[in-house]
Amino acid sequence: MGLFSLKIESLQQLFVRELRSLYDAEQQITEALPKMIDKATVSELKEALEEHLDVTEQQITRLERIFGLLSEKVSRETNRGIKGIISEGSDLLSTGGERNVLDAGIIAAAQKVEHYEIAAYGTARTYAELLGKTEVAQLLQETLDEEKDADSTLSDIANSVNVEAKAA
Amino acid sequence: MGLFSLKIESLQQLFVRELRSLYDAEQQITEALPKMIDKATVSELKEALEEHLDVTEQQITRLERIFGLLSEKVSRETNRGIKGIISEGSDLLSTGGERNVLDAGIIAAAQKVEHYEIAAYGTARTYAELLGKTEVAQLLQETLDEEKDADSTLSDIANSVNVEAKAA
Repeated sequence: MGLFSLKIESLQQLFVRELRSLYDAEQQITEALPKMIDKATVSELKEALEEHLDVTEQQITRLERIFGLLSEKVSRETNRGIKGIISEGSDLLSTGGERNVLDAGIIAAAQKVEHYEIAAYGTARTYAELLGKTEVAQLLQETLDEEKDADSTLSDIANSVNVEAKAA
Repeated sequence: MGLFSLKIESLQQLFVRELRSLYDAEQQITEALPKMIDKATVSELKEALEEHLDVTEQQITRLERIFGLLSEKVSRETNRGIKGIISEGSDLLSTGGERNVLDAGIIAAAQKVEHYEIAAYGTARTYAELLGKTEVAQLLQETLDEEKDADSTLSDIANSVNVEAKAA
């Protein structure tokens, strides 16, 4: 591979690229969540987002441990998917509106974030398995399970919030 | 509501905004898929993406029908989430690299698109149900099922493509 080449020549390279993109995503989410918590009005939603902020911070530490296990430099690669999803959510919040409807919008934005992460962590976990990185695969599976749980919690909260939003 | 106000005051408004964002997403996907098809090397992947292009065109028509049923103007609202996800995929393709590894990367990008859509169509279908728009909810459920099928097909193809990528 040439000195200036950035071509992706191996699954290991694609894997590390995905991890750096996820590492950036988690930090973007850590910055976005406090604003969503601040704007959320239903206490159940506020609490779920607060809990997810804690979980996200642990996921960042877990990714740092993964980079260590792989002997790879800890670095971020801008995640434009998550950036776009977050900016849609921020737009909605700055637009403003009826509070129950905004709560419904916050849930919708958060579920898009969760689903992006479910796809990305699912891919990364599969790459780790194929590359024989068993411990790394287990760590990624833990995060994947947490993202699925968060999505399911948000669906439960949506059941009541959406009904309030409809009545608004 | 004031003449210049864009505030989101009802679930119906949030719903229509989500549909316009999905309408934009599907058209972005229609533009992106031919490039992915062109770069994919495994015939199974090429065929799956070609089939999904046909399905996406039908989903656009279905959304136009939904706007009609709701007596809402057919219009696009830029979907920045999908824009970001697609630009990540395009970056990978323009970077280039080993062909089996790129196939694996195309699948990863496509699965992120599918998961975004699963979240967004799930939300839109639930709003339609709450608003008592039964026919619209059924149409959105059809698209949701198609997106889930596409994600599952991609996972199946990934099983063989990733093994090739590892051996690269």
